[in-house]
Amino acid sequence: MNQYQEKIKKFSEERNWNQFHNPKDLLLGIVEEVGEFRNIVKWEQDPKVIRKIMLENIEEVKDNIGDIFWFLSLLAGSCGIDIDEAAKEVIGQNEKRFPIEKTKNKHTNTKLGGHDGKY
Amino acid sequence: MNQYQEKIKKFSEERNWNQFHNPKDLLLGIVEEVGEFRNIVKWEQDPKVIRKIMLENIEEVKDNIGDIFWFLSLLAGSCGIDIDEAAKEVIGQNEKRFPIEKTKNKHTNTKLGGHDGKY
Amino acid sequence: MNQYQEKIKKFSEERNWNQFHNPKDLLLGIVEEVGEFRNIVKWEQDPKVIRKIMLENIEEVKDNIGDIFWFLSLLAGSCGIDIDEAAKEVIGQNEKRFPIEKTKNKHTNTKLGGHDGKY
Amino acid sequence: MNQYQEKIKKFSEERNWNQFHNPKDLLLGIVEEVGEFRNIVKWEQDPKVIRKIMLENIEEVKDNIGDIFWFLSLLAGSCGIDIDEAAKEVIGQNEKRFPIEKTKNKHTNTKLGGHDGKY
Repeated sequence: MNQYQEKIKKFSEERNWNQFHNPKDLLLGIVEEVGEFRNIVKWEQDPKVIRKIMLENIEEVKDNIGDIFWFLSLLAGSCGIDIDEAAKEVIGQNEKRFPIEKTKNKHTNTKLGGHDGKY
Repeated sequence: MNQYQEKIKKFSEERNWNQFHNPKDLLLGIVEEVGEFRNIVKWEQDPKVIRKIMLENIEEVKDNIGDIFWFLSLLAGSCGIDIDEAAKEVIGQNEKRFPIEKTKNKHTNTKLGGHDGKY
Repeated sequence: MNQYQEKIKKFSEERNWNQFHNPKDLLLGIVEEVGEFRNIVKWEQDPKVIRKIMLENIEEVKDNIGDIFWFLSLLAGSCGIDIDEAAKEVIGQNEKRFPIEKTKNKHTNTKLGGHDGKY
Repeated sequence: MNQYQEKIKKFSEERNWNQFHNPKDLLLGIVEEVGEFRNIVKWEQDPKVIRKIMLENIEEVKDNIGDIFWFLSLLAGSCGIDIDEAAKEVIGQNEKRFPIEKTKNKHTNTKLGGHDGKY
């Protein structure tokens, strides 16, 4: 198992917190972190400025990333999924689904002519 | 850098997809995966049944976990954050913040007497 | 147009804030409010206690509801949709889709034998 | 009570669906609709094109708006909140919090010099 997922699992077990970690609560935990992240980038429309604010607030960004990883690890662990395995499988699927020659410079929004909306 | 994050980064670069990977789009990508996950567990109130449905739909669950990890990796990578570093830091912080002896069997919902709502 | 949506539209126009109200930002605004709401109900598993905490924090709940309505109104208004019209249509569709005699006491989680997962 | 909220309440009661409408499930319902909405606007960076796609997919957009309103109505109703009251209060608060002369053309991202991040 991914070594950080393993530590997070242990953290939860030592505190007997699995009783609180209903998948719905964990999903909403991820949602809250996404919502907090929004505060760093909200309303700004220029991608360069968005990038700049993220770099200026890198510690806060890192915290949010870590927190999402945390809840994701617990969610995966709650049904015995190794987060590394899940990542590996999705990478394999996406490499097959989106061959470089067909998808270079093209996005996947089918409303805008993109191919395969599943991304 | 986390080896799967590295591969996902390469995938995006080879297709020149960084132009589409605005942080807001990546955040909304995570939101969509959370929403899809909801379909597996929705409306059921018994935690045991919820666990059972998740195990019965383990491939779909794994896909969702992998997809969230995917968007999270791109988000982290877009400002040079290693997802493993972010995980390590949050684990360190939470271990300090929630000492076992003080938090065992107690959750962090301050509305219900929990200590430290930041979880 | 729904009278509150109308006022929110005017509020945004008077401040010339439509330039910030990209649909992606508005969607993430809703996400943040959902995330804040989570703090009121998180980790608690007993539906009766969840209901009790919501009533004890009714002003905060009302704020969150109002804020979600706010962003939803702006989102609808950005492409000329009247929120009342959208509500009316969905009510009509759901009444057809879920006849009382077929759906009473049955939920719509198809993983658990529910009919029509689109809810 | 808002007339559409009233009808949605009746819909749920007639089917005895309140047993499924745990606030956490309703919040995740909103999340799923936000995620679906994302599919219409994803990856596109030009606000004018985003607006164009929304107009070209207006029925789908209206459906998503209606569905979010639906879940929001049930959530509000579950603790006796009238969605119109909640809207009215937030409008009053925001008018006080953001006087036109001080906020015209200025957004509320405090990371970018905005005043009052609570928006």
